[in-house]
Parts: sequence; C-alpha cells; structure tokens
Amino acid sequence: MSDSITPRSKDYSNWYLDIILKAKLADYSPVRGCMVIRPRGFAIWEAIQSQLDRMFKESGHLNAYFPLLIPEEYIQKEADHIEGFAPELAIVTHGGGEKLEKPYIIRPTSETIIWSMYKQWIHSYRDLPLLLNQWANVMRWEKRTRLFLRTTEFLWQEGHTAHATKEEAQEETQHIFEIYKNFAHNYMAMYCIGGKKSESEKFAGAVETYSIESLMQDGKVIQAGTSHFLGQNFARVFDVQFQSEQGSQEYVWATSWGVSTRLIGALIMAHSDDKGLLLPPRLAPTQIIIQAIYRENTKNEVLTCAQSIFDELSESFRCVLDTDARHSPGWRFAESELQGIPIRIEIGQKDIEKNSCLVSRRDTGEKNAIPRNALGSAIAPLLNAIQTNMFERHKAFTEEHTHTPDNYTELKSLFEGPIPGYCIIPWDGELSSEQKLKEDTKATIRAILDQPPPRSTCIISGRPAKQCVIVGKAY
Amino acid sequence: MSDSITPRSKDYSNWYLDIILKAKLADYSPVRGCMVIRPRGFAIWEAIQSQLDRMFKESGHLNAYFPLLIPEEYIQKEADHIEGFAPELAIVTHGGGEKLEKPYIIRPTSETIIWSMYKQWIHSYRDLPLLLNQWANVMRWEKRTRLFLRTTEFLWQEGHTAHATKEEAQEETQHIFEIYKNFAHNYMAMYCIGGKKSESEKFAGAVETYSIESLMQDGKVIQAGTSHFLGQNFARVFDVQFQSEQGSQEYVWATSWGVSTRLIGALIMAHSDDKGLLLPPRLAPTQIIIQAIYRENTKNEVLTCAQSIFDELSESFRCVLDTDARHSPGWRFAESELQGIPIRIEIGQKDIEKNSCLVSRRDTGEKNAIPRNALGSAIAPLLNAIQTNMFERHKAFTEEHTHTPDNYTELKSLFEGPIPGYCIIPWDGELSSEQKLKEDTKATIRAILDQPPPRSTCIISGRPAKQCVIVGKAY
Repeated sequence: MSDSITPRSKDYSNWYLDIILKAKLADYSPVRGCMVIRPRGFAIWEAIQSQLDRMFKESGHLNAYFPLLIPEEYIQKEADHIEGFAPELAIVTHGGGEKLEKPYIIRPTSETIIWSMYKQWIHSYRDLPLLLNQWANVMRWEKRTRLFLRTTEFLWQEGHTAHATKEEAQEETQHIFEIYKNFAHNYMAMYCIGGKKSESEKFAGAVETYSIESLMQDGKVIQAGTSHFLGQNFARVFDVQFQSEQGSQEYVWATSWGVSTRLIGALIMAHSDDKGLLLPPRLAPTQIIIQAIYRENTKNEVLTCAQSIFDELSESFRCVLDTDARHSPGWRFAESELQGIPIRIEIGQKDIEKNSCLVSRRDTGEKNAIPRNALGSAIAPLLNAIQTNMFERHKAFTEEHTHTPDNYTELKSLFEGPIPGYCIIPWDGELSSEQKLKEDTKATIRAILDQPPPRSTCIISGRPAKQCVIVGKAY
Repeated sequence: MSDSITPRSKDYSNWYLDIILKAKLADYSPVRGCMVIRPRGFAIWEAIQSQLDRMFKESGHLNAYFPLLIPEEYIQKEADHIEGFAPELAIVTHGGGEKLEKPYIIRPTSETIIWSMYKQWIHSYRDLPLLLNQWANVMRWEKRTRLFLRTTEFLWQEGHTAHATKEEAQEETQHIFEIYKNFAHNYMAMYCIGGKKSESEKFAGAVETYSIESLMQDGKVIQAGTSHFLGQNFARVFDVQFQSEQGSQEYVWATSWGVSTRLIGALIMAHSDDKGLLLPPRLAPTQIIIQAIYRENTKNEVLTCAQSIFDELSESFRCVLDTDARHSPGWRFAESELQGIPIRIEIGQKDIEKNSCLVSRRDTGEKNAIPRNALGSAIAPLLNAIQTNMFERHKAFTEEHTHTPDNYTELKSLFEGPIPGYCIIPWDGELSSEQKLKEDTKATIRAILDQPPPRSTCIISGRPAKQCVIVGKAY
C-alpha cells in the first residue's frame, strides 16, 4: 500500500497526489476542476472548521449564510473587483426551464451580495460593528487545477465585517491575521511568515491585503490565508452609510478575510513524507491507533487488553481500535503511517506478558515500550511533543531555506536551485522591479516585512530601497 | 417591537413572516427566491446540525463533500429522477469566459454525482456498507417561495448509503427515519406522524419513501424529513456492481435521506405565538437571558449580582447577560419574548433585597421568585419542564386536530374548516381515489400508517379498503 507512494525526490508533484489518493483524502470528480472530498479529508476540514469557528466566535463573530448566486451586475460595480474575478466566473443563464432575464454568477467571493444586504441593515453607529462570517462553497473557473491547492469549487470561510472607523477596521484586519497565524502555528504546526501584500498581489477590491505564507518541502510557497482591509470601497459602491454618534452621515469601513480547503493541501505538503501523511495531533481526526496483533490462540487475551487500552484512552483522546486480522501486521503498520496517525500503540501476546505496550511516534519513527499502567499519563505529553516537534521541524526547514542574497545574480541562482525557498531582499517599491523579478525568476513578492531593508539599495533595480520584502515561488 | 407582530388569528401567513423578519432570523435577498439566513436563524441551524451530525456519526456515518455542479447528462440517466427534477433546475452554461461544451446543473440533490463516484469506489463486499452524508447547499427553481419553507437555494444534509443487501438498505431507511423522528420529538419538541409515502408522493427515483410529517398551528402539514429506499435504481443506472462474499456480481442497494433549513420554518410554526418565537431549550442558541434592571443609584449592586448569576449559570447553560440601559424594561422583556428565549431571569434592587430573582418561562408565561441560592439547581429541571411541555402541547394540538371521519362528506367539511388538520381514513390504494381527494379537498395522503384501515371500505371510492392513510393539506 504505502510503498507505492512516489518518493518526493523522484517526483514531488506525484508524491503529493499519491498521498491524497492513496490515503483517500480526496478524489477527482467528473466535473471539470472539481474534487470530491472523501471522509478522511473531510474529517481534517471539520477539525480545521471547529477550531477556527471557536476562535472567530470568541472574538464576537457570528455565522450567517448568504445566497450562492449573485446578480451579475453586482460584481461589475467595483472596478478592481470585476477586473480580478471576471475571467473566473461560472454563469447561470437558465432556471426553472427558462432563460433568465438577467444571468447570475456563482459566488467567487461574497463581498457584493453581502454589502447589498448591509445597505439594508446598517443605518446607525448602533448597528456597528457587524462581524459576520460564513462557511460556504465558492467557485472560480481556474485554468490549471490541483487537488486541494486550486480547484474550481472549494470550501472556505469568508468573514465580512463593517465598522464605524478606519482604525477599527484596520485592527480587525490585524486581529484576523493574528488568528490565522496562531492557528497555522499552534494547530497546523505549520510555520508561516506574514505581512502586507504588494499592490499587484493584493485582493481585487482591497486597500490592503495581509497574508500568511508557508514554505513547502519543494521550496515553493503557499498563500495560506488572507485578511483584507477594504477601506470604504464596497460601502461607496453599495451606498452603505450610517449616522455617527455625532449625527453625521459616514460611509462604513470594511474588512474581509478567508481560508479555504487549500489549507489541507498545505498541511499535507508541510509535513508528510515518503511513507504518507503526517497529521499534527491537535488536528488529527484520529490521534491514536491501537493495533491488536494476535494469532488464533492469543486472540481473546490480546483483544481484551487492546479493548481496555482503547476504553481508557478514548476518554481523553481520539482513538481507533484496529483488530483487523485479514491483513498482516506489516501492512497495518504501513497503513497507519500512510494515514498519518500521530501515535500507534501495538499490543500483542509478548507485550501482555511484559505488561507493557509498544508506542510508536509517526513523526520520528521512535518506538518505546511503555508499561501498561503508565500509558494513561504518557500519551498527553507525547502528543504535545509531536505537535511541538512538527512545528519546530517545519520552522527549522523554513529558516534553513530562507536566504538574504547579496546581489541579484545570487538571488537568481538561488531560485534556480532544487529548493528555491525564500529570499529576503531590499525593494524599491516599484512595480517595474517586481515585474522584472517575476520575469527573471518566476518568484514574486510574498509579503512586505515589518522590518528595515537589509541594504540601502533595491537588489533588483539598484535604486534606493524602500521596503524589506520576502520573495518566493508561489503555488 | 413585538407588539407589531401580526396576530395569528388575523393573518397566519404574515404572522409567520413577521416573526422571521422581526426576530431577525432571515431576510429576503436580491436573488430570486433565495433568502439570507441571519445570525439568529443560522445559530438555530447550527444547533440542528450539531445534534443530527452527532446522531449520524454515532451510527457509523461519515461526512464527505461532492461537487456543487453535476453534468447535465447525469441527471437524465434515471427516468423518474429527471422527470421529478427537470422543471426545477438551474443551469450553468458559461465558465471562465467561455460557453461550456456541455452545461452543468447546480445540484438539486446529489444521487447522480455520488453514484458516479461509488462506481469507482465500490468493487467488493468489503467496500460495503458505505455510509456517507454531506452538509451542503442545493438549488431547486421553485415557482412560489417562502422564507425557510420553500426557497430556491436551501441548506440541508443528504445521506447516501450503499449496501450489499436489500434488507440492510431497508433497515438503514428505517434507522434514519427513526433518527429524524427522535430528533423532531426530543430536540425540536415537535410531534410528528410518519410512515411510507404513496406512489405519487414518493421521491423521484425511490422505491419507497418514508417521511415525518408535522401539523402546524394553521392545521396544515409540513413534510419535515424524508428517508428513501432507492432499491438498485441508481446502481443500475451507474453500473455499480460488487463482488459478493460468494463471488457473484451484484448490483448495490441504496438509500438517501435528508432534512433541510425547512426544519426552522417548522420549528417556528409549531411553537411560536403572537409574542414571537418560542424555541425548545435543547435547540435554543440562548437558553437563558439574565436581565439586569437598575437605576443609576442601584447600578453597581445590580450589575454585580447579575454578573454573578451569569457566571454561575454559564458553566452549565447557554446564557446571555442583558445590561442594556438604553431601552425600557418593558421593551427588553418583549424583545426576549420575540427572540423565543426559554427562560428569562430578571434581577433588580428589590430582588437583591429579597435575596431572590424573578424567573419567567417563555412557554407558559409563568413567573416565580426563586431564592438566589436555589437558582443553580432550579434551572435544569425548569428547562426540561419547558422542553417536555412544548412537546406535549404540540402533541395534544395534533391529536385534537386529528379526525377519523365517517364518510366523504364529513371528510370534505373537515378540510373546509379553519384548521383542517389530519384525517385518518381507509383507502383503496388507487391513484384515482388519491387524485379525487386532492381535487375535492386540496388534501393529500401524507403517509400510509402501519395500522389496519378504520373501516373496510375506502372513504373516497367505496371500494374495499387496502390501507390506512393519514391525509392533510400540505405546505
């Protein structure tokens, strides 16, 4: 089973697809560019949803649901927004057996339909802030798709908030950016860098976009989440004004922000190895697999013991009991590795005789015999250790592949290497330099860092440097 | 606020819409027939989802996600299925700026796309049973829509299971039917009758449909959930065969089942009154509102006390602390009634002096002063009493409006009355009688009951009765 995964060193792209298909996370569908998320993949999405939803609610956000379809003319109201999304729209032209007078688009994002409702709901400063989020499917007609990373339809959450002041909207943008980073670090065990996007990379319709970015094992970068300060753009377009506490009429300030099922792609690429998936304990749908290894003459005793371990650990952890006797112990071991279960506990006749069980860590492969009566107290620290190790390992990998080249020639050669990684460079803030970089290296500015440029001149143009940016080849 | 709700006696339909709009459960959208589910409405849906999801998972069902779009030719493969859904389809003809070679439909239900995948996943009896569910949006281009009850887009869950034997699939159909009934009775506090649908009322593509039906306060009936035994219909159409344990090739047996945001409409209509919404405690997003009533000179003491009550009760119950001083106590009381919060606790200076607080039940209006130190232990029994009372009251209402008419004239006059209700009648099993009933009374067969007919001849045709059916006017 797992030995048929293409090794990363041979073909990284097929390694990624092999893990998804063989671990049964997702499958191709008969609909162009759309995937089917299978139960094991969907359980990861449920874990992501459940944590993020808690974080959003703790900071006062409420869930709502807006229509899938958007009148076509809405999307055309905000000039940048339509320019960004027009090429990717799916259009509904017929409904109920008739051609529609006006076509609808399937939401690629919901700013326009939501702000058309905010127009009706927001009249006074008392109606603000309005902090809404929705978990929904969206559709963008992508030319090249790849399971989880870029699909025509994907699942996501999109937050849309309305505020009385610019400062409050900017704080919200930062607050969500911090939630995303916290979630990536502490739940996904995935190290991210983050910052403001350049003008050319920001969201179509935003004043400022902040993103978290994460380096994958092939040295390419995934944009994992974005938080946008929208200024008053959508309020002006949909004429959403409120009466301030002082009695004046003001346009409302806005943010929007989202993460999607793309996170599952990032999670796979950040941690997995040639044996298969590797899930961080805090998000793993199954944290522990208890495998009973027995023959006919030891069956009763081993199953009784395995069941007692399962019963004990299930009170505190997400466990699965594997008593499958149709497959060999080796196959079952490999299968649990393929599925990325953080801890495997093996129990056989010999372990029972020694009154212990064999506990394996998926992240390091380390195996230890742990006395049966110490098992209960050993698991929580071990899960924490795995979670921490996965994060530290990914952080170390990222740092190892983050460079500060001295000159443009060095920068170009870094991006020609097998693991391009990040480069931190001084930039003059000009679009022309950004474009030259992209043409020469295929790398783009991933984020403007909140730190001074490493040198006084732009590494691309030689002109005075204005900002410190981190560049990389993006997915 | 709440006094502006149209009384039921004056205009039932406007009463229903008033509650939804004024309690801010949902709103009309600019998209034909589609609603916006606002946070208070969505929180009810989240409560429904969370309970049902737990019940499905406890019986081995897993969540997955299948594409929104379905190739148009798929829906045409099953003859009954296309006949049922063709008039209601929304069609996507353009994507990515180009006309599509073959159009897609937006899923009205997902049997076809799911069974096209099952074809790839099911090969052996070892792959069975396959018990999947998805929470998703679907679209049916309805001519006449009504918030929650019938909207062009709605949210639902759709279960799709595959089995090796007919018996197992039939058991699954029954098992889900029982889950739905249990959920309606014990969580929604909504009494349902249920049974098999007649041939003309069953799901397009099913062999048998079982439904739960519930009588609303206007004497009309809502179909609240359906569970279908699909036989081998979809397996044959998509050629899904498996190798049995004995080595033969067999077609797979199927079920599908669903409930939708329509349940929220039923919940509103089953329980609410002229003051507004009334939510059963087990599903209420807020179970208890603690209202601090104070003047400037009593503010500190009252707020401290209210906060201590909130802190104590929040450990076990879903509570909201209302310290709003902008509105009058009367307005706030009416507002909490409008929102349907099961228990209201009022705390003012006089209550503090008496070391008690005033506890009101939303369902009966009953108010009791409860000593402060007895409050903690009084709430759980009170919530249970409200839950039980709401169910018993709805059951009594249903029974009061369930008739067993002696003859067709009596039956017709019952359906001409102000609260038509149910009639239990003997039926000859013929479509012609069913059609005559509908033409004469607008009532339809809601379910075939699992009991002998009350008399030996069909009340409609006078021919020998074959089945006992319950009829009513459906939403």
